[in-house]
Amino acid sequence: MRKFLLLSCICFGLYTVANAQEADSLAFRRIADDILTNGQAYGNLRILCKQIGPRLSGSPQMVRAEKETFRMMKEMGADTVYLQDTKVPHWVRGEKETAWIAGSNGSKMPLRICALGNSMGTGTKGIKAKVVEVHSFDELDALGEKGIKGRIVYFNVRFNPTHVVTTQGYFETTQYRWTGASKAARYGAVGTVIRSLSSSIDDYPHTGGMGYNDSFPKVPAVAISTRDGDLLSDELQRNNSAELYFRTTCTTLPDAIGHNVVAELRGSEFPNEVITIGGHLDSWDLAEGAHDDGAGCVQTMELIRVFRKLGIRPKRTIRVVLFTDEENRGSGSNRYTAFAKAENKHHILAIESDAGGFTPRGFSLVADADKLARLRSWMPLFIPYGVYAFEIGSAGADVESLRALGATVGELMPDSQRYFDHHHAANDKFEEVNKRELELGAINMANLVYMVDKYGL
Amino acid sequence: MRKFLLLSCICFGLYTVANAQEADSLAFRRIADDILTNGQAYGNLRILCKQIGPRLSGSPQMVRAEKETFRMMKEMGADTVYLQDTKVPHWVRGEKETAWIAGSNGSKMPLRICALGNSMGTGTKGIKAKVVEVHSFDELDALGEKGIKGRIVYFNVRFNPTHVVTTQGYFETTQYRWTGASKAARYGAVGTVIRSLSSSIDDYPHTGGMGYNDSFPKVPAVAISTRDGDLLSDELQRNNSAELYFRTTCTTLPDAIGHNVVAELRGSEFPNEVITIGGHLDSWDLAEGAHDDGAGCVQTMELIRVFRKLGIRPKRTIRVVLFTDEENRGSGSNRYTAFAKAENKHHILAIESDAGGFTPRGFSLVADADKLARLRSWMPLFIPYGVYAFEIGSAGADVESLRALGATVGELMPDSQRYFDHHHAANDKFEEVNKRELELGAINMANLVYMVDKYGL
Repeated sequence: MRKFLLLSCICFGLYTVANAQEADSLAFRRIADDILTNGQAYGNLRILCKQIGPRLSGSPQMVRAEKETFRMMKEMGADTVYLQDTKVPHWVRGEKETAWIAGSNGSKMPLRICALGNSMGTGTKGIKAKVVEVHSFDELDALGEKGIKGRIVYFNVRFNPTHVVTTQGYFETTQYRWTGASKAARYGAVGTVIRSLSSSIDDYPHTGGMGYNDSFPKVPAVAISTRDGDLLSDELQRNNSAELYFRTTCTTLPDAIGHNVVAELRGSEFPNEVITIGGHLDSWDLAEGAHDDGAGCVQTMELIRVFRKLGIRPKRTIRVVLFTDEENRGSGSNRYTAFAKAENKHHILAIESDAGGFTPRGFSLVADADKLARLRSWMPLFIPYGVYAFEIGSAGADVESLRALGATVGELMPDSQRYFDHHHAANDKFEEVNKRELELGAINMANLVYMVDKYGL
Repeated sequence: MRKFLLLSCICFGLYTVANAQEADSLAFRRIADDILTNGQAYGNLRILCKQIGPRLSGSPQMVRAEKETFRMMKEMGADTVYLQDTKVPHWVRGEKETAWIAGSNGSKMPLRICALGNSMGTGTKGIKAKVVEVHSFDELDALGEKGIKGRIVYFNVRFNPTHVVTTQGYFETTQYRWTGASKAARYGAVGTVIRSLSSSIDDYPHTGGMGYNDSFPKVPAVAISTRDGDLLSDELQRNNSAELYFRTTCTTLPDAIGHNVVAELRGSEFPNEVITIGGHLDSWDLAEGAHDDGAGCVQTMELIRVFRKLGIRPKRTIRVVLFTDEENRGSGSNRYTAFAKAENKHHILAIESDAGGFTPRGFSLVADADKLARLRSWMPLFIPYGVYAFEIGSAGADVESLRALGATVGELMPDSQRYFDHHHAANDKFEEVNKRELELGAINMANLVYMVDKYGL
């Protein structure tokens, strides 16, 4: 691109906004200008990722992240900041995992793997067995005990690349991570490997939560990088009695205490109407948790800073909640939901940002038809900032249970193409977040809250 | 993000499409599915970037790129592939540039710079002079000969961060790159430095075209990385008589011969109506030219592959044009426009992809109102693939002159947030392109051509 002269102004989607919305349009512009010029989200993300690092529930970094974000939101000028304690799981990975498969030429071919979160370890000697590769639970069931017993099951299930929104590929394959170990152990498998839940081909194994069904034996469960998963599959084609060895020393310790970090801007007119926005402060241990979900934390904290800076005094109570333990048991969400239920206020909106700090495209919502229509009537205001869709869909995992309290719940939907390249893997790091993309997410969250605070919902 | 169950289907913007468009919707889906599953754009980009590398006009890599893409489009099944020769500039960078400023403590502080394309060199001894920092041409004019003579002018002009579309920031600042040297030399400057035209703060100097006004002396012109540009500015604050040294050995050789590479699918019903899509094959010498504009080349070539694969037989003639020398003199564009004028066919649409292989958002167009309305009536078909705007704006630099022949002209508008982080710099490399984002651009280009071919414009 060489272009020299500004022949014409490109104002994507800068539709004519009704006069009645002109003041809102100006407010959006002020919020955006300030965040794009003076925003602290990117700098705060650097602190979470580089000074603190991985923030798995139960880890010392979890505690540091709680303290740091408490301080940040105080300094930003929240009316109050408080902690909500809850028991959180405390799983530790132990030593770096090793794995290899006996190559067809007798070699040991090393493979990049990682233990899945909550998995039991193999013990220090590791396990070694022949491998059965399957592509679905149907294939597993068809093989049954005869085909599975004594073997390691390799769930080689790819993302369907034809989904334009990659989240759909993830939704279709997470079942293998969460329940694959018990389903295989039911037929006598001695361990399981899943193809990493990723839309790209690379060398990063992706961890993530799994659980055991108490009705079946517990067996160690790991993920393999997509590239090595393809190698493993190729090797099994050549030699279907090849043996796989892997070793994990992960273990589960007694529960620890974690905290939601909650900041409030108190409503001046309707303090009993509550708008909640937030992200989750925990991350997996392999990752800096930049996109998942440091981004959501720093984007939503930014609302406090920019409202204070611009003198926007909310009518309703706005809460920024940094949830603990989203990745594992959801105890932070449970704690906040119980709190919200008990306080007997009216929760009108709860939105999470937990799909990465990528350029925003819309909001996914669980909403009544009239409320959705109302939100959509505001769309022209959002289009200049890249948001063009308010769609019925899913809500952030930490806020969806507030639906039962009558709130409209949802989540920011950034562009999804790159998210699963990084999700739960060592390459989910600060360098992979673009400052402006992150800021545009913060802007759209703040603008949505601005409107719902001003007009109700 | 942890989510386990697919509670609801997220289909962003999957609006109900009128029945009349159902067949088109299915065609879009087939094109998208095939590109997302079997696409060759990413692999072809790897060849352009990693096997060939920087493709500056006049370089041996320019010639290799012409041969390789000729072969690719032949193999994809184009009815015909041909070359259009033209004289192209042949500027060479010479040795790696060096620069330093005398620090306030007497040290030599090294700075990352690069010569601007077409600039003269300093000679092997380099130049050394005091520096005047300005932030606009108005400041330069106010200083005049008295303030400028014998000095190096540093144009420290930042992108305005409040533009949501970063291209606007670029349009506002390119004048300093193109014309800054002559405007400063008019007042007796001995050299110029521009702040790199980038929206991020990093260590990459960004090159790009400049030109001299023959009425004034020629002086060497370089760009400095944004981070070092800030250091330079800080140092000048401390010591405004600090001297800057820089050395460049670039030079301009006699013109070389370059070629547009043109592939055609001949129209079965209206072969004299022509749809042109393309990108430019040349890149700056510092970069692999992944986003600028290997992406546009491989995206548009992909149309030939997918139309052939799916048996889509165009009614109108479709041309994929890989333009030579976009970055410098625009000779490839001139050559094609002259050809198009002479052949006396009816050019109905000409679209370039030259804004990076990022996730697409829309098309920017120069179009009559009725044609814009027609294109917009197709919008619901595009929304599921991420395109939600057909806007009046700019056209690709290589195709805009086809407007004079009556064509609707335009360009693919991908998300702009990251483009200028990489533009004309060493970090515009293959690794910075996401396979799926690249493919979504190819899909939307192919789908637009599918519609205009089927229904005319």
